[in-house]
Amino acid sequence: MTIKTINGFSKLSKQEKINWLSQTFLGGNTQASNLLSLYWHEDSERQKRHDEFIENALSNFFLPFAVAPNFKIDGRIFAIPMVIEESSVVAAASNAAKFWLERGGFKTEIVSTIKSGQIHLNYSGQAQSLIEFFESHKKQLISSVDELSQSMVKRGGGLIDLILANESESLSDYYYIDARFNTADAMGANYINSCLETIAENFGMLASDFDGFGPNEQPEVVMSILSNFVPECLVRVTVSCPVTELAQEGLSGKEFAHKFVRAVDIAQTNPLRAVTHNKGIMNGVDAVVLATGNDFRAVEAGVHAYACRDGRYKSLSKAKVNQDHFEFSIELPLALGTVGGLTKLHPMVGVAMSILQEPSAEELMKIVATAGLAQNFAAVRSLVTTGIQKGHMKMHLLNLLSQYNAEESTKIAAVEHFKSNSISARSVAEFVASHQKNDQ
Amino acid sequence: MTIKTINGFSKLSKQEKINWLSQTFLGGNTQASNLLSLYWHEDSERQKRHDEFIENALSNFFLPFAVAPNFKIDGRIFAIPMVIEESSVVAAASNAAKFWLERGGFKTEIVSTIKSGQIHLNYSGQAQSLIEFFESHKKQLISSVDELSQSMVKRGGGLIDLILANESESLSDYYYIDARFNTADAMGANYINSCLETIAENFGMLASDFDGFGPNEQPEVVMSILSNFVPECLVRVTVSCPVTELAQEGLSGKEFAHKFVRAVDIAQTNPLRAVTHNKGIMNGVDAVVLATGNDFRAVEAGVHAYACRDGRYKSLSKAKVNQDHFEFSIELPLALGTVGGLTKLHPMVGVAMSILQEPSAEELMKIVATAGLAQNFAAVRSLVTTGIQKGHMKMHLLNLLSQYNAEESTKIAAVEHFKSNSISARSVAEFVASHQKNDQ
Repeated sequence: MTIKTINGFSKLSKQEKINWLSQTFLGGNTQASNLLSLYWHEDSERQKRHDEFIENALSNFFLPFAVAPNFKIDGRIFAIPMVIEESSVVAAASNAAKFWLERGGFKTEIVSTIKSGQIHLNYSGQAQSLIEFFESHKKQLISSVDELSQSMVKRGGGLIDLILANESESLSDYYYIDARFNTADAMGANYINSCLETIAENFGMLASDFDGFGPNEQPEVVMSILSNFVPECLVRVTVSCPVTELAQEGLSGKEFAHKFVRAVDIAQTNPLRAVTHNKGIMNGVDAVVLATGNDFRAVEAGVHAYACRDGRYKSLSKAKVNQDHFEFSIELPLALGTVGGLTKLHPMVGVAMSILQEPSAEELMKIVATAGLAQNFAAVRSLVTTGIQKGHMKMHLLNLLSQYNAEESTKIAAVEHFKSNSISARSVAEFVASHQKNDQ
Repeated sequence: MTIKTINGFSKLSKQEKINWLSQTFLGGNTQASNLLSLYWHEDSERQKRHDEFIENALSNFFLPFAVAPNFKIDGRIFAIPMVIEESSVVAAASNAAKFWLERGGFKTEIVSTIKSGQIHLNYSGQAQSLIEFFESHKKQLISSVDELSQSMVKRGGGLIDLILANESESLSDYYYIDARFNTADAMGANYINSCLETIAENFGMLASDFDGFGPNEQPEVVMSILSNFVPECLVRVTVSCPVTELAQEGLSGKEFAHKFVRAVDIAQTNPLRAVTHNKGIMNGVDAVVLATGNDFRAVEAGVHAYACRDGRYKSLSKAKVNQDHFEFSIELPLALGTVGGLTKLHPMVGVAMSILQEPSAEELMKIVATAGLAQNFAAVRSLVTTGIQKGHMKMHLLNLLSQYNAEESTKIAAVEHFKSNSISARSVAEFVASHQKNDQ
């Protein structure tokens, strides 16, 4: 039996890693290991840059890089770069962009841009002693990050405030210091975490010199880390038009608006629907987040937690009709950066930023939230008119045809045939088999 | 002024799209448009396959494809493929895998595998009439998808049941039919949506023939779609060992266990911490979800909604010490597929599936959840011992050095220098400038 564990894997060269993997998990089958090197960039210097992003990199996973044109945001026109593997997302975004281009476009507003991090504490003494210590040393703690903050302050950001929170009624002896930051055009994770660890270190030193704590009642730092919950780093996007301008798909504007508003109200009411409704929003959001080198796990976590901030998981978007005027809007918490992280390292991120005219972080928040609202509009529109499967199944058909190696003539015939026949893996396989047989 | 909007963009060839983009948004600057084609695969047939995944594809966005070895899951050893842009994730997963390899490995259990979709209804009549109609036609509605389900039933899946829910107290006239499915090794989104639309169509026809509804009180279908909230498609993963085996980083096993459990308890209590705690879990989860061609937006939405199912957003993992035994576990709702979708289309997904020994959907649920728990273990361990920044900043340093085009000798000197000096964009830039100057 092969020994499948290994010591020092990370220290092997890329080729040695692939060889080990091939021998250990691929039964010496060279096809898979060949595929790994087949996807290396032909320019080895360029490939090296990509290999350095993370540990144990063996190859590149291609995700399609596309653009959705015709977005009018606060009067400016954008083509939005999107990186996503799911078919229909870019088509839906483009359709929604075009629809609203002719109806005034997307209007946006930055609500606020504060991010926070916490220093989590154990403290078993009197709350009052900790409060006194904290208040009397707060200035010192704040200035302990002055050096770390120099370039951030130059760019208009920095540490805003420290607040002590007492959560000992929820969890015994639990307090935390909430540190509030503005991070300008950086997402700021490294900056915030470095500040927090510095403050925590100073907090520990100052606390050990403070004589107001009882014996064995020194506050203890458990951990220090930024929060991806950013309800105060918020952008709002709205589209609106007279109800009469919504006529489509055999529906009057009024009928369409009624169905649309109802569908959004259902997503406000039923979490089973809200989760998928918001997933559709995130199809648009994540595609731009990925293209611009931001961290989609951070954005996802913050957005979904925001969707349940009232104790019930709800739709992130709202729709209403007021005096024959239709309005559809979204509020999204988005901590994004246009400097730092991958933004300057990944060449395709550079291309995306150029296409977007080198946006500031606030501009990127507006663009990303617009992509989310556009995606949501397209999805709900499909759902209440033709159904979601019509568009999806067309792309699904093309994918199945590729999978079954259908020839070009078979593809054309299949697209025609499946306009009026139901698409399943089986029906497409049968069609391809019979059509290619007929051809012979 | 250039006109920045366009009609018929999707119908242009890829090169025409790039030309338009370059002229319209890149000021004719050819560098960015050259980069787009520079990232095409040299084999144009292969590139064509990637271009067909989505609409308006212009190029490939490279994400690093890596593996984390030494995962012991239910006694079997795996190397887990991960696709992610964030540094430290694969290193952290590998470390956690190795740690638990020597302590019995990860133990998993599939709790259930039911997915659901809903047909959302408007109905203003007596609830009793709708219930009677539904119950008397339920069998017919269920059998309406028999043909669609043929291949799914062969693989052990299919429609399990239909349940009528009355939500009219939350939203006037709102009812829905909850359809419950098992989708075997497919994620099943297309199958479920096709079934729902077929059932909805039959529901409408049968309802119009039913004489129990009052005039103008026919139930109306608003929309039909699967739910990404999958609390019954659930996997559990646990690691455990005697507390004494946890000694590390100058801490006794007991001290480490105490700190670790406390950190997880804080994430159970404070949503500010819970969101980031769960974000760390998703670093591991999404990396495997991406590598295996699954839809990370669907997984993210379902997981975070599950984290707040009790009305308060909480940690997805739990830790405890019981009679000197440490236990750390997670329950994750994961709707994943190993057939259908991208799984057979994307060559690198094929490689990932081979590395994982062609898992079933249930096996993939176990592997993905294990990656999540491992990631969480590594993150919390860092937080309560050395702090998260130590590992992060080392990778950050290497990225900054690449960004500033540091020569190899400068890189080596910098790694040494920054072991004892604080890393910021500014301090690294200064170091590189002074070091490379000294060299001349």
